[in-house]
Amino acid sequence: MSQKLQGVFTPNLVPLDARGNINEDEYRRYIDWLIERGVHGLYPNGSTGEFTRFTVEERRRIVKIACEQCDGRVPVLAGAAEANVKETIAACEIYHGYGARAVAIVSPYYYKLSPESVYAYFREIARHSPIDVTLYNIPMFASPIDIPTIRRLAEFERIVGIKDSSGDVTFMCRMISAVRPNRPDFSFLTGWEAAMVPMLVVGADGGTHATSGIVPELTRRIFELTTSGAIDEAVALQLRLIELFDVMLTSADFPEGFRAAVELRGFDFGRSRQPLSDAQSVDRLALQRVLQCIMADFGVVDAPEEGCLPRSGNLERDKVLQVTEAVMARLRERGVG
Amino acid sequence: MSQKLQGVFTPNLVPLDARGNINEDEYRRYIDWLIERGVHGLYPNGSTGEFTRFTVEERRRIVKIACEQCDGRVPVLAGAAEANVKETIAACEIYHGYGARAVAIVSPYYYKLSPESVYAYFREIARHSPIDVTLYNIPMFASPIDIPTIRRLAEFERIVGIKDSSGDVTFMCRMISAVRPNRPDFSFLTGWEAAMVPMLVVGADGGTHATSGIVPELTRRIFELTTSGAIDEAVALQLRLIELFDVMLTSADFPEGFRAAVELRGFDFGRSRQPLSDAQSVDRLALQRVLQCIMADFGVVDAPEEGCLPRSGNLERDKVLQVTEAVMARLRERGVG
Amino acid sequence: MSQKLQGVFTPNLVPLDARGNINEDEYRRYIDWLIERGVHGLYPNGSTGEFTRFTVEERRRIVKIACEQCDGRVPVLAGAAEANVKETIAACEIYHGYGARAVAIVSPYYYKLSPESVYAYFREIARHSPIDVTLYNIPMFASPIDIPTIRRLAEFERIVGIKDSSGDVTFMCRMISAVRPNRPDFSFLTGWEAAMVPMLVVGADGGTHATSGIVPELTRRIFELTTSGAIDEAVALQLRLIELFDVMLTSADFPEGFRAAVELRGFDFGRSRQPLSDAQSVDRLALQRVLQCIMADFGVVDAPEEGCLPRSGNLERDKVLQVTEAVMARLRERGVG
Amino acid sequence: MSQKLQGVFTPNLVPLDARGNINEDEYRRYIDWLIERGVHGLYPNGSTGEFTRFTVEERRRIVKIACEQCDGRVPVLAGAAEANVKETIAACEIYHGYGARAVAIVSPYYYKLSPESVYAYFREIARHSPIDVTLYNIPMFASPIDIPTIRRLAEFERIVGIKDSSGDVTFMCRMISAVRPNRPDFSFLTGWEAAMVPMLVVGADGGTHATSGIVPELTRRIFELTTSGAIDEAVALQLRLIELFDVMLTSADFPEGFRAAVELRGFDFGRSRQPLSDAQSVDRLALQRVLQCIMADFGVVDAPEEGCLPRSGNLERDKVLQVTEAVMARLRERGVG
Repeated sequence: MSQKLQGVFTPNLVPLDARGNINEDEYRRYIDWLIERGVHGLYPNGSTGEFTRFTVEERRRIVKIACEQCDGRVPVLAGAAEANVKETIAACEIYHGYGARAVAIVSPYYYKLSPESVYAYFREIARHSPIDVTLYNIPMFASPIDIPTIRRLAEFERIVGIKDSSGDVTFMCRMISAVRPNRPDFSFLTGWEAAMVPMLVVGADGGTHATSGIVPELTRRIFELTTSGAIDEAVALQLRLIELFDVMLTSADFPEGFRAAVELRGFDFGRSRQPLSDAQSVDRLALQRVLQCIMADFGVVDAPEEGCLPRSGNLERDKVLQVTEAVMARLRERGVG
Repeated sequence: MSQKLQGVFTPNLVPLDARGNINEDEYRRYIDWLIERGVHGLYPNGSTGEFTRFTVEERRRIVKIACEQCDGRVPVLAGAAEANVKETIAACEIYHGYGARAVAIVSPYYYKLSPESVYAYFREIARHSPIDVTLYNIPMFASPIDIPTIRRLAEFERIVGIKDSSGDVTFMCRMISAVRPNRPDFSFLTGWEAAMVPMLVVGADGGTHATSGIVPELTRRIFELTTSGAIDEAVALQLRLIELFDVMLTSADFPEGFRAAVELRGFDFGRSRQPLSDAQSVDRLALQRVLQCIMADFGVVDAPEEGCLPRSGNLERDKVLQVTEAVMARLRERGVG
Repeated sequence: MSQKLQGVFTPNLVPLDARGNINEDEYRRYIDWLIERGVHGLYPNGSTGEFTRFTVEERRRIVKIACEQCDGRVPVLAGAAEANVKETIAACEIYHGYGARAVAIVSPYYYKLSPESVYAYFREIARHSPIDVTLYNIPMFASPIDIPTIRRLAEFERIVGIKDSSGDVTFMCRMISAVRPNRPDFSFLTGWEAAMVPMLVVGADGGTHATSGIVPELTRRIFELTTSGAIDEAVALQLRLIELFDVMLTSADFPEGFRAAVELRGFDFGRSRQPLSDAQSVDRLALQRVLQCIMADFGVVDAPEEGCLPRSGNLERDKVLQVTEAVMARLRERGVG
Repeated sequence: MSQKLQGVFTPNLVPLDARGNINEDEYRRYIDWLIERGVHGLYPNGSTGEFTRFTVEERRRIVKIACEQCDGRVPVLAGAAEANVKETIAACEIYHGYGARAVAIVSPYYYKLSPESVYAYFREIARHSPIDVTLYNIPMFASPIDIPTIRRLAEFERIVGIKDSSGDVTFMCRMISAVRPNRPDFSFLTGWEAAMVPMLVVGADGGTHATSGIVPELTRRIFELTTSGAIDEAVALQLRLIELFDVMLTSADFPEGFRAAVELRGFDFGRSRQPLSDAQSVDRLALQRVLQCIMADFGVVDAPEEGCLPRSGNLERDKVLQVTEAVMARLRERGVG
């Protein structure tokens, strides 16, 4: 039997070049960097990876490169949702051929489907997929997968886990109670790193954390502290991680805040396929300065030249003050001010 | 200048063959039937048309056939949303070439975008599309387009209207107040036929109504009664139309109730690409009997052989009773019971 | 049989004196003013009347004064919801004694109750109230009353109508279809004046409109235009009324915007029992200037001394500009600027 | 300085006699029973205690009895929310006189207030209350208290804690990060026992748990296991507690499921003030049999005579099967069946 999915999987962002096409070199360099910093697996074509903004052909290429570049160092969990069941199963077959460990399939979106329809959809996939399937529950974006449906779907051996991005710890407990007794091999992954420690404490096997694409050292460390029982230390880091997570999540339309952050780690991700308005482009620069300060506190990047002001918890104010400080610093350099 | 979009546009369903492919012959026959019964325009690749469940190539074919088959008899409003701005603009170009009158572009979905991002997205399209663009606001499925954003987008000449499926009459009033003074040519279409008469009364130019794909005679009649001032007669029909609409909308996951209904008009639409569970398949048959009774009251189909029981307003009960009646009728025929 | 409830009922605000107690003189003067300007009835202890912020004794006094001051000129619909069924029935008895025409009872709030519990609650009241009862559905604040529940409750003769503040025109249609065939005497009142005309067009009997406490002349006129068939004229006024309604509703926490507006009609309503922060107090003054401009356009008050700037539809901006204009005007007067 | 609020506070239910009045003897007996089984404090007039369904006088009596009966054995946290700020402050004074340790004040409800209004409301109370105040955040029933507002309110010394019933562990982390650095004495209590262990793990000081009114031994044990570092054992109990909690919470309109459960511990709580329909009354009996089985598994009550069937996780089915089993057992006793 295949090994259970566990640890921190990175739902990786995709770098684009000046023309808006996949920047393969940068993407490969980014994968190496993630693996070197300790992520347990890769998760291409997730929400963080903006899978809906790529074409079918691009989605395949994104998984292909990931599988090649990982080359067995870490498992690849490939997002395989396509326009309909037939196309999704076709993607499962292809990703199986690429050597992915499993696929993750988001519940149908756009239409809000009933539990019965969600069940029918995944049942069809479970019956025909040649590769292990992970359910992907993200109720803020897609039709929710409720507990009775998860229980019914866990009867299919081909379904080996669920990735849940609800962020609801009690829901995680309910899933575990409903499924684990009969399926000890079933993997529970949380997509909400803001609750990473409590999720692991109640029994989750790991997570798919966008933040691990920005600060892989930290999410790895929190995982290890928690699983080795150093809970207090893990909680202290968890509280600090939430600040970073919240800023990336709420400062811009997801996942733009994460794109802004990853650039601070030395990668060129280019412009997103979702256009930014003029106001948004300006705001992004201010955001990056605050992000740099938060990440500098973790020791993973240098602080900006002008130094970091104390943060107030009010992001709008912090952005203004930090940018003003940067401008003042420049002026001081030039002997003005 | 092109003519303003007005009247009832049909967001047409797409018939599939036994293999799940587009059934072109039936589709063309259906288009003719709609036009003969008085719809003012066609709207392929809408939510009713399950655009997200088709591939890029299929979506193009769906529009191409519609344009060919209409052949200028009525205008085609083509749904053109694709994975990202570049792909969407490419679709605009192609549909322009096919002879569509305009495109309708749904606000970005899956991710819930802020008004600023929604603006940036449509601005990019407005600047590059060679064909007139209609905004498509459907807040239950996609990022909402709010009034200030509509006002800003109405500054682009290329944007010629909005299709709103919120069903909120006050919102329609607000849109009209915000835009019409500066853009008398801007077209306001409602996607919520349950409020068709009040929407027209407050100033809407027409609608894109899934129900017009089932009972085109009726939606045409309601439109004409309302616009000619026969409000009381229109309201009486409106109240009855709501019963049909509600049953189609709430009896199954959208748009399956509409698919079940259109078959009663003599078309073979095949099975949806969203699989049905066993329970759902059985339920669909019961639903069709009730739908047949409602539609028989309008005189557009015959009542089922067993006759129609009075409806209670409780769909679950009505389905059971009507099906029981059908079984009893069969038994009586055979001399049993 | 008693006369059906119809027309515009004013859910009146309650003026307070400097100590925060009911200002009886001003309240009586306000009631006279409303009746003189044509409201069809009064509705004390509604949401607009902040019934939850008064004590039991005060709520009784509010109804008593209303009944006395009306003195039969117009009917009084008295809000009678209390802490529990027993207390609510006691209030029904008392208001019956005061001479109210009927009571309106909001669905249970705080706890979100199921339809079955909502039914059980109103059934108990229907069985014991000596005065006609109007259901009050306001889903944004209290447990919703759904269509099947309304249908079941309409079986009690004592229940004579429903006041619905959902603002959903289709819901109004559904209620009318479900109840009117068996209860032609049942009254349908809308609490959402932003949809007053369409609600009347589809068959509502009238409304309880907070705005009628501010501009009773206008709501009366819209009612009469609509019921006499002058729909186009009514719609034109409706669109303008929405601007006033939206500003009062969204500018401050309900019903503070309405309190700010009524003062412009020459009444002293004192400070609300919900305290304002410093920022809110300042903002209220700016709001009043914009409200004065909107109301001046209707001819019911004079424009502010500095004149009125064109409004942009962006309330925040309009407030700033209008206040700035006022300050500039003062400075000009003094020869500055 | 007063001792920090910590541990498990019981938001106690109130027993009623045959006439629907407070059953003082049973209430006092219940308080003793709770204290003997280890609850750390009492919380009268909470949501569980149905504070909105009592009169002002009754709410005072409820607190008075609690303070008397506790007699210093455990602290009393008294719910003090009244119709408006003045009345609420009056209640604070009275409860101070009764000897309560602190009051808990729910955010304004019915009207949905903005953060600024929530702030203004609590500021007024903080300035005038003679007794320590705990904020009570229960966003499913009342205006939410957001992080910036909590931070501002924590500047008042009189405000000593927050009781949060959102059930959101990340929100708990955010509150702690925002307030604890400046107010180490500030108490964080969770009202969501379904997440009791993870909440304590991330730093909560305790909770106000309705479930502790049913199985005080268990909530006490979970608290002690968690705070003493026996996390795995605590989590195992937590998962089982969720089953009980979910059944009580979802089986009936809150808090009726808890009322049904407490009777199994040997108390007579009488009928709720919220009337039950006939169907609800029948259903309640079936519910109690399932609850008895769940509680028997914890060893706190005996199993029903007919024994307990395995539970499926589907409450509706479990209720039917268990009741059927009970009927069959009776028939077997009588030699039938």
